[in-house]
Amino acid sequence: TEPFFLISGPCQLESLDHARMMAGRIAEACAPTGTRFVFKASYDKANRSSIKTERGLGIEEGLGILSKIRSEFGCPVLTDVHLPDHCAVAAEAVDVLQIPAFLSRQTDLLVAAGETGRAINVKKGQFLAPWDMENVAAKVASTGNRTILLCERGTSFGYNAQVSDFRGLPVMAQTGWPVVFDATHSVQQPGGQGLTSGGQREFAPVLARAAVAVGVSGLFIETHEDPDNAPSDGPNMIPIEQMEALIGELRAFDDLRKRPDIG
Amino acid sequence: TEPFFLISGPCQLESLDHARMMAGRIAEACAPTGTRFVFKASYDKANRSSIKTERGLGIEEGLGILSKIRSEFGCPVLTDVHLPDHCAVAAEAVDVLQIPAFLSRQTDLLVAAGETGRAINVKKGQFLAPWDMENVAAKVASTGNRTILLCERGTSFGYNAQVSDFRGLPVMAQTGWPVVFDATHSVQQPGGQGLTSGGQREFAPVLARAAVAVGVSGLFIETHEDPDNAPSDGPNMIPIEQMEALIGELRAFDDLRKRPDIG
Amino acid sequence: TEPFFLISGPCQLESLDHARMMAGRIAEACAPTGTRFVFKASYDKANRSSIKTERGLGIEEGLGILSKIRSEFGCPVLTDVHLPDHCAVAAEAVDVLQIPAFLSRQTDLLVAAGETGRAINVKKGQFLAPWDMENVAAKVASTGNRTILLCERGTSFGYNAQVSDFRGLPVMAQTGWPVVFDATHSVQQPGGQGLTSGGQREFAPVLARAAVAVGVSGLFIETHEDPDNAPSDGPNMIPIEQMEALIGELRAFDDLRKRPDIG
Amino acid sequence: TEPFFLISGPCQLESLDHARMMAGRIAEACAPTGTRFVFKASYDKANRSSIKTERGLGIEEGLGILSKIRSEFGCPVLTDVHLPDHCAVAAEAVDVLQIPAFLSRQTDLLVAAGETGRAINVKKGQFLAPWDMENVAAKVASTGNRTILLCERGTSFGYNAQVSDFRGLPVMAQTGWPVVFDATHSVQQPGGQGLTSGGQREFAPVLARAAVAVGVSGLFIETHEDPDNAPSDGPNMIPIEQMEALIGELRAFDDLRKRPDIG
Repeated sequence: TEPFFLISGPCQLESLDHARMMAGRIAEACAPTGTRFVFKASYDKANRSSIKTERGLGIEEGLGILSKIRSEFGCPVLTDVHLPDHCAVAAEAVDVLQIPAFLSRQTDLLVAAGETGRAINVKKGQFLAPWDMENVAAKVASTGNRTILLCERGTSFGYNAQVSDFRGLPVMAQTGWPVVFDATHSVQQPGGQGLTSGGQREFAPVLARAAVAVGVSGLFIETHEDPDNAPSDGPNMIPIEQMEALIGELRAFDDLRKRPDIG
Repeated sequence: TEPFFLISGPCQLESLDHARMMAGRIAEACAPTGTRFVFKASYDKANRSSIKTERGLGIEEGLGILSKIRSEFGCPVLTDVHLPDHCAVAAEAVDVLQIPAFLSRQTDLLVAAGETGRAINVKKGQFLAPWDMENVAAKVASTGNRTILLCERGTSFGYNAQVSDFRGLPVMAQTGWPVVFDATHSVQQPGGQGLTSGGQREFAPVLARAAVAVGVSGLFIETHEDPDNAPSDGPNMIPIEQMEALIGELRAFDDLRKRPDIG
Repeated sequence: TEPFFLISGPCQLESLDHARMMAGRIAEACAPTGTRFVFKASYDKANRSSIKTERGLGIEEGLGILSKIRSEFGCPVLTDVHLPDHCAVAAEAVDVLQIPAFLSRQTDLLVAAGETGRAINVKKGQFLAPWDMENVAAKVASTGNRTILLCERGTSFGYNAQVSDFRGLPVMAQTGWPVVFDATHSVQQPGGQGLTSGGQREFAPVLARAAVAVGVSGLFIETHEDPDNAPSDGPNMIPIEQMEALIGELRAFDDLRKRPDIG
Repeated sequence: TEPFFLISGPCQLESLDHARMMAGRIAEACAPTGTRFVFKASYDKANRSSIKTERGLGIEEGLGILSKIRSEFGCPVLTDVHLPDHCAVAAEAVDVLQIPAFLSRQTDLLVAAGETGRAINVKKGQFLAPWDMENVAAKVASTGNRTILLCERGTSFGYNAQVSDFRGLPVMAQTGWPVVFDATHSVQQPGGQGLTSGGQREFAPVLARAAVAVGVSGLFIETHEDPDNAPSDGPNMIPIEQMEALIGELRAFDDLRKRPDIG
């Protein structure tokens, strides 16, 4: 079994220059361990807490930037899609389409995404059990798509809070699809700051280490050069200058987990 | 303050004849108490547990039926919308557009619905706190729409389960928008039957009574002439022959709750 | 079926004079509706959040006061017990022994309480399901005791929070034992203020109304003449001057609920 | 920092012969890695789901057996206590007194245990937040006791279910007391089998691996030679023949976690 791949990037696309800078720094952070990465960024934050917060660059400019990152850095790129109509368009620019957690039961979106033939990363809804993801994956697979990723990102736990249930990783892996752990959204505090969501950045490396020890195919970690001033998800993103050390640590646990005698 | 209004109907549109029969029987069940009702039915079940279960009649045929019910019975009609594009189309046929709980954070859908000028019934997401609905309502209200309903339908409580928190009704009412309690989805057991969701029909009247005693503007109760064989949500729908007695009981509690000396 | 009985009093015994004053005022609040009440107070707060907060008067002085209240006011009295050894002693002074929620699975305590022959009010553990109370009641009933009350007081819901599930009332009633709803502990925020627990006093009447509409045999409502300065549970107690009006309202809902034609 | 110590044994004492056999096999399982272990067994199951299930050997015979195990095997021994009176008695026979999760807020028990001067392992209540354990530890520490362990064993998550929140381990470690992860009770399904609790034995090694990767001082793993026929907690105990391999794996993760360059 292969080392984990990393899905990483800023939560939200800010500009071509910013995306280039981030992709470059993520590439540097991954280089020492030879970690493969997928560059992730959103062109549209379609479900923010408040209507007053920034939505992003929009689909046209956003996909243009992601295309350029892909060709300049030679890395696969990922973005999230919110409407069935956007899937085919986004699929021309990116390698992986991501289904947001809130939308993980929307049949038309899952099918439209699946039909593009691109890899599909489905976030598990905060309202779903791990075993519910078998039906979710089956909606994508009904299109013939065979490149499906199932991504854990936290489960509702009282109000404005979530919890990561690590039993869910092997449960989801029983579907046969690779499992990804999203370490930064898992420490989000949904709605926890009134008009925006809060976060507990300090626990993202802790939960990522737990996930790697349990066993995952991929990790999802959002990062930024200045999280406290990022346009979205700042409270849970990892500062880019900490990424190389974090990846190194996580790779040590992953190498151990994937030793032939473990598991 | 007025007696509660009732949003009722079969979960899913089955045919014009079936809709007519149901609307007629709901009208009969409401007549003795003079309860105003909105006929509710879905033309598309867009987020079912499994891709193998029935989706419904589709938007064109479905809206045609709802239009006919409206003109034949003189009652307002409600349907749920899942995509921004559908809002304007559905708004031509119905009086109330409903935003499904899973989609209660999707800004584009809330705005597109709001822009139609129709009344908008937003179900509270199972992953949201009651106080989070202020931001949700603000997205609809940003369009100038002033006919917004906030609807409680249960909150995630462990896996494949939900709970109704009755503190949420007065919390949501503090927004100033009328609050509706959905008694039949509140007893749903999401994903609880493998490929479909389960339900605890026997608790719907219990929770409805609690909601009316706490105080609501409206109730949402799905009904069917043969719930055990209904194409969706059968486990939580109320048999139509029980509706008149149930409405009568609930009106007695509502009348008491809305007496000037109570509250 | 009879109107609800009320279990009421200050959370903690403060002095004989204070207990007399409270019992007198509760009696006055109950008089207009002829509501039967059980005077409740604790001689020992054995499980407070912090070791630095007040424990109470102790068993000897506490039981002496409760005895006097019983003979002076002619009302039954209730106190909670924390250790098997205390049951027989407390049973000499009081009519009802109460098992705290945290201790609702402690077999020795349940059995020792049951063996006194006194009525036993068992609070449902925050960690238990309503149907788990059948086994709890069976422990008390194993002693031959047939005066068992089952009391709902909230269920864990994330951290430092709880929720009241009103489906639990009819579920517990299926055991055949009378069900009591504890309106003031149900709005506690456990641990929510650091060294003590917080509370949402404003929701206690709301939840009490819901409980009465669903149907209960008894209500438990703690009260104080100055909740903000009470030695314990202040944030969730009802000011004594509001009790008469509250009881009156709740009795109206209870009378309706128990009408022969309601169900 | 030292490798993790292991608290292990059968849930319930069955006989001297059985305890000897189990202690011997645990010693063998620990030997290859030089893992220090504490032998754990209960003389009384004081809070079982049903009154009809086995309670155990009782305090006198039980403590006698634990004493013999201690002298014969030269290992520390642990048992749980349920009443303040039992603390001093048990302290004569055992090295570690354990406070059950349900009793983690009982001040008298915590203080009586603390006063023995023995090490105290407090299980975090299923109804407590990790940060609530600071107040719990302070109750024990108020006696001058400075050998306190805080043990995570799952948090209530809906009905008859719990979840392990791994953020809780570093939160509890901030108190300065060593943190233990109880891998077998964390996979218990409380009340999940009607008269007894169920369990998901297969997830105990998964969660143990996560805990070790996050970082703990100790692990708690109950084991039995025939879990399916054990008198209690069978559904979540690890078969003794799997313990050596499991300990070996966990030690590999622990060694990595405690490398000077990690964490």
